[in-house]
Amino acid sequence: MPEDLATAREDVALANRILANEGLFDAFGHVSMRHPVDPERFLISRHRAPELVQAQDIVELGLDGEPAVPTNFRLYGERIIHAAIYAARPDVIAISHHHAPAVLAYAIARAELKPVYHLGALMGPKVPYWDSRDEFGDTALVVVTPEEGKSLAKALGPYWMILMGRHGATVVGTSLREMVFRTVYSARNAELQTLAKLVGAVNALTPEEAAKAVAYNLRPDPMQRAWDYWAMRLARKEAASHR
Amino acid sequence: MPEDLATAREDVALANRILANEGLFDAFGHVSMRHPVDPERFLISRHRAPELVQAQDIVELGLDGEPAVPTNFRLYGERIIHAAIYAARPDVIAISHHHAPAVLAYAIARAELKPVYHLGALMGPKVPYWDSRDEFGDTALVVVTPEEGKSLAKALGPYWMILMGRHGATVVGTSLREMVFRTVYSARNAELQTLAKLVGAVNALTPEEAAKAVAYNLRPDPMQRAWDYWAMRLARKEAASHR
Amino acid sequence: MPEDLATAREDVALANRILANEGLFDAFGHVSMRHPVDPERFLISRHRAPELVQAQDIVELGLDGEPAVPTNFRLYGERIIHAAIYAARPDVIAISHHHAPAVLAYAIARAELKPVYHLGALMGPKVPYWDSRDEFGDTALVVVTPEEGKSLAKALGPYWMILMGRHGATVVGTSLREMVFRTVYSARNAELQTLAKLVGAVNALTPEEAAKAVAYNLRPDPMQRAWDYWAMRLARKEAASHR
Amino acid sequence: MPEDLATAREDVALANRILANEGLFDAFGHVSMRHPVDPERFLISRHRAPELVQAQDIVELGLDGEPAVPTNFRLYGERIIHAAIYAARPDVIAISHHHAPAVLAYAIARAELKPVYHLGALMGPKVPYWDSRDEFGDTALVVVTPEEGKSLAKALGPYWMILMGRHGATVVGTSLREMVFRTVYSARNAELQTLAKLVGAVNALTPEEAAKAVAYNLRPDPMQRAWDYWAMRLARKEAASHR
Repeated sequence: MPEDLATAREDVALANRILANEGLFDAFGHVSMRHPVDPERFLISRHRAPELVQAQDIVELGLDGEPAVPTNFRLYGERIIHAAIYAARPDVIAISHHHAPAVLAYAIARAELKPVYHLGALMGPKVPYWDSRDEFGDTALVVVTPEEGKSLAKALGPYWMILMGRHGATVVGTSLREMVFRTVYSARNAELQTLAKLVGAVNALTPEEAAKAVAYNLRPDPMQRAWDYWAMRLARKEAASHR
Repeated sequence: MPEDLATAREDVALANRILANEGLFDAFGHVSMRHPVDPERFLISRHRAPELVQAQDIVELGLDGEPAVPTNFRLYGERIIHAAIYAARPDVIAISHHHAPAVLAYAIARAELKPVYHLGALMGPKVPYWDSRDEFGDTALVVVTPEEGKSLAKALGPYWMILMGRHGATVVGTSLREMVFRTVYSARNAELQTLAKLVGAVNALTPEEAAKAVAYNLRPDPMQRAWDYWAMRLARKEAASHR
Repeated sequence: MPEDLATAREDVALANRILANEGLFDAFGHVSMRHPVDPERFLISRHRAPELVQAQDIVELGLDGEPAVPTNFRLYGERIIHAAIYAARPDVIAISHHHAPAVLAYAIARAELKPVYHLGALMGPKVPYWDSRDEFGDTALVVVTPEEGKSLAKALGPYWMILMGRHGATVVGTSLREMVFRTVYSARNAELQTLAKLVGAVNALTPEEAAKAVAYNLRPDPMQRAWDYWAMRLARKEAASHR
Repeated sequence: MPEDLATAREDVALANRILANEGLFDAFGHVSMRHPVDPERFLISRHRAPELVQAQDIVELGLDGEPAVPTNFRLYGERIIHAAIYAARPDVIAISHHHAPAVLAYAIARAELKPVYHLGALMGPKVPYWDSRDEFGDTALVVVTPEEGKSLAKALGPYWMILMGRHGATVVGTSLREMVFRTVYSARNAELQTLAKLVGAVNALTPEEAAKAVAYNLRPDPMQRAWDYWAMRLARKEAASHR
């Protein structure tokens, strides 16, 4: 296995476990990353809970969501979410799909997420809302057909995060770490937005403030600092029980 | 002891500890399972906090709630909840009874639980509400007589979960894992429903969406994935302190 | 040291650590117990955070709040709370004083705590409200003089728990375990009451239901079951870090 | 290295990890302390998450926010917050800057923090609100220029804590322990204020009550008791995973 690929598999597994450890995932949710050499492929875990994912669980899928390397592993039903977005968005290198309560509440209430602090601006200038009901009527809510995947990718458009009605959210990034950073801080922003509403008022950043906050926080140093912190927390937790 | 029974006892104990570890139980609450060989019996722990239950704590009771195998163990006062439902519902293989705050709030407010995301649909098309006061007047709120058990089982009817006014909830399933899956995700749905209300609006699944989401999520793979995840979390926690 | 006293000291220390571990105490709060032999004395920790208290930290105070056995240890400023209640209420064997957020919110809002589930009934038929401002004007809010202690004990009257305006709560019991049981479940009831309000309505137990629920739950078995559970949780936590 | 300085570096590192462990910090936030010998310098960590900070990460900066001792370490972008306040307030010995949700909600809602219990009075008689937008228009929200630092320090005036609109809070103290004590209990007060609002009413301390509560709680003993408690909790957590 080329070194790039081996590292990428380790990183995808680690990102799964970090997002589980930070409360974004429970038994469900997944992380993917575009293949480091072949942009027509992406890496994602076989069907298992994200907190359990190790490098050897990572499979290679094509942009149709089917195995690019034959595998006997069972696959996620919703892998088409990832495939469709990688096909539609060449700039996207990594994706998470989750049902974190703080964010999902907005996808149930169909309420607009607004950046209420500098790190929350990472979710981008707009978080579109997609509802499977609009095009597909009554479904199981999960995104499993190519048509559903394309519809979702189209609704995402040029943005970085999308709410999926009565289901969850999908977050994208130009790198794995950027995507993890955005996934965590968009959820923290949602918590703060709800809390600020209960306290009295949701005063959002202006679009100009948000744009400047994104430029400031997407530099490599803040992202590395956060990644190191989350990796340490995970390592400590794993060390406490793995003996 | 036949192998089926030994496995069932281990599973009932594990389900108790999983539901405690996931925050559904505190010192109180219990899990039961219909006997794997004799449908006129069920397995339940002796009187102790669910997080402490081991296979050797499991007793065999008949459908009258009394020991089918003599035991010196003290028994749960509310074992009649289980007995009465197994008697009334031959399709039910496992039951939990709990006081998890997210759900209990609805049993206090007498508010309707509605499925607000795909996994929440697992609680079924309707969650009936039973109030001990209606038939029995002022009681200690606990369900301890055969009459109370029958009344509760009647109110449950063909459904999968019931709210018990100012007391808690009871959840049933056609297998132990299905029941655990439903117990956890009905509570997560309650949390989300409350949060969505605070954010702005409770937009529920349509009955057709809910039925499709149930069919999708009650396949063996999602249930196994969740069970493996909860079992791993429990094993890690127990490993961290049992040395 | 007589065996009764040695056991009592261990129990008071354990009750301190249990209530800290269950989230009732942070750096502040305390537990006391009437002396097992001499009813004119009570046992309480020297001045330290409850999660750190061990048997050797326990001191013996008289009903004036002063040391009955000479000690060089620093004492809690608010020990008069305990002294005054033991003097006024011969039936009281154990006391906790805490600032747990779920309950303190009611002591800030001056809102009535109502039993909303069977275990919440343990707080008693009424939870009086005492405000230092009424008799003593502007104070530091803490209860440190004999007059303040007497006023508080008088306001408690024959009840089992009292809210202290903008400060916290004090809980009493006829045994150490009963008091710990009541301290935990009155706080859980407060959380549920708040949550039920957010969900839609606070439907309380009738006085008759509450009285029956108390009689049912104050039997030795439920209390022992809960104590064993809390002691196990504490032991596991201490085992995980004490090696 | 003189002993005072070595101790101070250990203490600053410990305060960082305590505030992270108590939930005030995540990947971001920082603690500083005025140099024990040279009041024109202050000690602060190099650029890293506070939960990871060790004594060897501590750098010495001047009151312009630039290194007083040459270093190759990367520095926090917002170190000017600390520099500007030390320059403006000779009485200030320690500072924290954080984005804890309970407090940040007030900095988003632009709602007034009021002392609602004795320990909450520690935040001081008034918590001013500073908004970068007022003087500097649309910024990235972070405080990185000397002008921004001076503006913030001016808005803080003689007080002990300041809310920074859509960004976070900064807390100061006359000693490291006092500042940590204030940082924790101002956040607990914010949680209680929000909870009391949901329960029904925010009844604050009178200014006289608050002043007396501050005098009572800022004595050495309560601060030491809290510090010992937090240090123990941190030590246990670190012990559980560092083997």
